[in-house]
Order: sequence, then C-alpha cells, then structure tokens
Amino acid sequence: MPVMHQAPHPDTAEITLIPVMAALSDPIRIGLVRTLSDCRERGWGELRAPVAKSTLSHHLRVLRDAGITRTRQEGTRCYVTLRRDDLERRFPGLLNAVLAAADIDHVGRHVGLGTGNGG
Amino acid sequence: MPVMHQAPHPDTAEITLIPVMAALSDPIRIGLVRTLSDCRERGWGELRAPVAKSTLSHHLRVLRDAGITRTRQEGTRCYVTLRRDDLERRFPGLLNAVLAAADIDHVGRHVGLGTGNGG
Repeated sequence: MPVMHQAPHPDTAEITLIPVMAALSDPIRIGLVRTLSDCRERGWGELRAPVAKSTLSHHLRVLRDAGITRTRQEGTRCYVTLRRDDLERRFPGLLNAVLAAADIDHVGRHVGLGTGNGG
Repeated sequence: MPVMHQAPHPDTAEITLIPVMAALSDPIRIGLVRTLSDCRERGWGELRAPVAKSTLSHHLRVLRDAGITRTRQEGTRCYVTLRRDDLERRFPGLLNAVLAAADIDHVGRHVGLGTGNGG
C-alpha cells in the first residue's frame, strides 16, 4: 500500500512543556493517552470516545502537534502510537505522573478501544 | 489587623486533575509556582511577572481555584502559598515532575520576587 503524505511531528528536542501540558488538560485526550499507554500502534478506527469523529480527529491532532503521539498514514487509514520514550527522554517522570493522577482521578475512562478494523 | 473575606479554596479531596493541568499550561502560572516552590508565604506585591497587575491577579485566581495555591487576605493585602503537600497527597509526583520539566525547558524564569512590601 503506498505511503501517503505524513503529518509533521516535532522532533524529541522540539517538544516543549506548555503545549504538552495544554494537550493533557482535556479528559478525552488524557483518555486517548491512557488507551495508547501500552505503546501499541492503534488504528484511529479502533479508538472509542464519546465525541464526534471530527472532534476525535481534532484531539488526535493536538496530541500529535504537542509531540505526545505519532500518527502514521497508510493509504486512507491513520494509525497512532504514544511517543512514551521520547516524552520520557524530554521530561522524565511527567507522563507517568499524569497517567497515575488520571488513574487516581478516574479521568479518561470513557475512552477506549473498540473492535474497529484499524485506521 | 482584621481578617476580611477569604476566597474559597477546594479541599484537598476536591482538587481535580483537569483544572490542575489547565492551570499549569501557562508560562506565567508555572513561573509563579516555581517562585512559590520553597513553600514560603509571599505577598502579592513581592511577585514580579512581565504582565499587568490585573493579569497577575487573574493568574493567581486560576491557581487558587485549581487548588494549587492558597490565598490569604489580611486587611487590603493578599498573601499566597503553594499547596505543595496537598497536591502531593492528591497526585503524588505530579507537581515535582512539572517543576522538573519547567526547569529543563526554562519555563517561567521571567517570574520571580521583587523587593515589594508584601501583600
């Protein structure tokens, strides 16, 4: 399958704190990060959230632009992975602390995986 | 000096993640938290930031409403402290990780203390 236009992603060194914090200030986006926290690549179609598809795309774009996720397009399908190692290198302990806090506070539990067929 | 109207603060158990993350998504507010991170009470008049006084008051209100700081009014003066222990109890490791990331990323260095006379 031909690889199409790939969205721009910040390099690890270009990831900055304020956009990361802003991206993680939303329950849907925290839910997406929780869902991706096993670092397996997921098709956008697998992701389940109580928002419209266009809103979900927006949230995924915010996460990508902040350097939190990597989006890969293959044909008409999009796949997403958490950039856990990159974030850990840039801001040690930050993502783990946010994920632990989200767990304590039950934030993002309404986001998960469905039985979609990928991207 | 008579104690006047005290602003409402969330109890420790009422502190929630999303407002905390949103409050910490701004460089001035991160600078204020850095400045207060020694947990000494500071008069608002001691705080130096490259914004108008009304903007600084707004930022201090956002931090207070999120449960990150405690504001005490005494007469016409306001004093502020970081609720470091409360936050640590609620979301272990989160504030330290954000402060460490702010240090790495040089965020909030334009905020500090002046030689003001307190509140």
